[in-house]
Amino acid sequence: MKITEVIITPIAIPDVPLANTKGVHPSVFLRSVIEVKTDSGFVGLGEGYGAKRTLDGLEAVAPILEGLDPYDLRDLRRRVEAALPDSGGVNAPTALADHKVIDVVYSAFEIACLDIRGKEVGRPLYDLLGGAVRKTIPFGGYLFYKFAKQDLTFGPDIMGEVMTPDTLVAQANEFSRDYGFKSWKLKGGVLEPELEVETMLKLRESFPDHALRIDPMGAWTVPTAKRIADQLEGVLEYLEDPCRGMDAMAELSALIHIPLATNLVVVEFEQIIEAVKKDAVQIVLSDHHYWRGATGAIHLGEMCRAANLGVSMHSNSHLGISLAAMCHVAAATPNLTYDCDTHYPWSTKEIIKGGRPKFKDGTLQVPEGPGLGVELDHEAVAELHELYKTAMVKDRDDTDEMLKYIPDYVRKVPRW
Amino acid sequence: MKITEVIITPIAIPDVPLANTKGVHPSVFLRSVIEVKTDSGFVGLGEGYGAKRTLDGLEAVAPILEGLDPYDLRDLRRRVEAALPDSGGVNAPTALADHKVIDVVYSAFEIACLDIRGKEVGRPLYDLLGGAVRKTIPFGGYLFYKFAKQDLTFGPDIMGEVMTPDTLVAQANEFSRDYGFKSWKLKGGVLEPELEVETMLKLRESFPDHALRIDPMGAWTVPTAKRIADQLEGVLEYLEDPCRGMDAMAELSALIHIPLATNLVVVEFEQIIEAVKKDAVQIVLSDHHYWRGATGAIHLGEMCRAANLGVSMHSNSHLGISLAAMCHVAAATPNLTYDCDTHYPWSTKEIIKGGRPKFKDGTLQVPEGPGLGVELDHEAVAELHELYKTAMVKDRDDTDEMLKYIPDYVRKVPRW
Ligand SMILES: [Mg+2]
Ligand SMILES: [Mg+2]
Repeated sequence: MKITEVIITPIAIPDVPLANTKGVHPSVFLRSVIEVKTDSGFVGLGEGYGAKRTLDGLEAVAPILEGLDPYDLRDLRRRVEAALPDSGGVNAPTALADHKVIDVVYSAFEIACLDIRGKEVGRPLYDLLGGAVRKTIPFGGYLFYKFAKQDLTFGPDIMGEVMTPDTLVAQANEFSRDYGFKSWKLKGGVLEPELEVETMLKLRESFPDHALRIDPMGAWTVPTAKRIADQLEGVLEYLEDPCRGMDAMAELSALIHIPLATNLVVVEFEQIIEAVKKDAVQIVLSDHHYWRGATGAIHLGEMCRAANLGVSMHSNSHLGISLAAMCHVAAATPNLTYDCDTHYPWSTKEIIKGGRPKFKDGTLQVPEGPGLGVELDHEAVAELHELYKTAMVKDRDDTDEMLKYIPDYVRKVPRW
Repeated sequence: MKITEVIITPIAIPDVPLANTKGVHPSVFLRSVIEVKTDSGFVGLGEGYGAKRTLDGLEAVAPILEGLDPYDLRDLRRRVEAALPDSGGVNAPTALADHKVIDVVYSAFEIACLDIRGKEVGRPLYDLLGGAVRKTIPFGGYLFYKFAKQDLTFGPDIMGEVMTPDTLVAQANEFSRDYGFKSWKLKGGVLEPELEVETMLKLRESFPDHALRIDPMGAWTVPTAKRIADQLEGVLEYLEDPCRGMDAMAELSALIHIPLATNLVVVEFEQIIEAVKKDAVQIVLSDHHYWRGATGAIHLGEMCRAANLGVSMHSNSHLGISLAAMCHVAAATPNLTYDCDTHYPWSTKEIIKGGRPKFKDGTLQVPEGPGLGVELDHEAVAELHELYKTAMVKDRDDTDEMLKYIPDYVRKVPRW
């Protein structure tokens, strides 16, 4: 079986101004839809980041995938590396969606190859990863402080302004009603730390039995993080990336009792070893989009088990192909014992047939395949590709977008 | 697809008195031949250890594999664990072939499941492991001091007594002529250390361009190992398990410049982390028979890459099913950059159709499948099963066997 054609379609999806410590989401988010066709008639799907550096990478690699055997993931890796010299590695530029482009591009195509293999053999993708240890995948509600959306050209706002503890709790209640989530993650590092503590404590009041997390994305110095952690001890399931960099995380880790999680200081397999040596984190976030695909995410699970680290799952803004892949990876990662993150409720569009999957009690059923178990809705893709062309947004810059809401905004990490 | 029947056939293969630091090989070695049948008509093959503890484990698990989906390796793992409580773990009894029976039993059945999957999809097994980075697999010659065989009931001797540096070099020359090996491993810890140094130096004279290794299996104290390593610096590619235990290896590692390899102090994934923290070894030996099957061996490769450790491959006495599986694992482990060990030349029997594979310049071609790419020779299996029944050897005890050659032998590790 050989690949005969690869189609990369950049799409733009209406987004809302979700805040984080680096700024705020622009009015659209970008994704790449990947279709990989074979001489045996199977078409594999993938969904990756859509910002310029990734899209350029995907488009550079696509033509040289002709003739690739979808089983030969190591040949895929070689071809990606050959097409993108000097694009990988942990020292590449720092935005997560942009850095280590080799891994990111490899990952997008790997999912498509696995989808093809699943379709060929009539098996859900999780079976190619060693089998499912769970078929019901629990997700957590991903809570954001946000502005009221100014520019409604590309789509409506969701929930209006949420810039206080009380409105944030109202946001959680709305998601609770619509999705039934049993755990909650707040994208922190946005308000004064004491207001974020107040938010978490009010979430605890509203959801006494639910797991709670906060992710300030490195916004806090070690002393600030220590002060906050002391106030949230017994409240948080884990604290995600409170401080910037491995050494700051290690310094904090020695001072507090709450487990530290990360998708920023451990993003390469080599860094697991460093993190363990320094006891910098206790939980690593998996994500098939940059941990070298679904097979890499499974390796990550094995390495974390060996290193006595917990495994959770990271999310960027995404649609249903990614969501399906996330479910398959979660199904096949035995020690992924935390509810997965997902941005999914923050958009209303879908590119897979059948429309948006319905969450029940915060969970989704892993699609039963074959492959990813989803089919592309080409009309929906065409519509969002049209938006990509008209929106004139080709990259993601949350800091630049923030200036529309706070004209004198200055990005600063850590800020407090 | 479901498993309908599992057949375990213990076999005994004539062996010769190969010496190691714990004693000497008995007159037969034991293996288990595994046939796993499915409702779709495919039969998967496996070959595992045959000593009592493993055989008991295989036989305990076999009946409860009925109904297992060969894709669901995690269900396989659960079934093995359920059938063998308290049989795994690094603290189980210490002989390598006997300890961590759960991993060993899982591994034997996993290969059979992968063989089935390869046959179903018409693909060599390496394709199920991510694809082959090499199809020509280099092996090293495995050299042993040995006694002249006393009891010829079950089979003839090979090469007579080899208990001096010069006869050992003659052994290597014979293997060089017949197999074309380009690297050599001496099972050390048998003669006085200075005689083993002399042996290595004479091997270096005979094979100036070949890679050389010695494996004393923990026979040396740290000071002895330091003395020997200083004499062999620049001669050895690596030094395998010179000292007993992780801490002794770490102590030695800090004193010498030759890389240390192991199949004794790192046999669990968790121990990779410990070994890295202590800088105890630089190379880990893979072996699909106990590293949780072929998928576990691939994980091992990934972990070693992340931990900046080299990967080589370990061998016990084995036949052609194991040899095929070793080739597939080696093909699919990118960082397995050392020639693989194999005991294969030390027996003359075979249980696969077509007879014994021929080495060319020390290499084998990975079978091109489907699956393992080998078929069972049922007549040959029946003959060796008959020997198993008549030989009345149900376990391996190299120390006990040694008393036949050296009546006052006392096992001592370390000895020097
Ligand atoms: Mg994060
Ligand atoms: Mg050894």
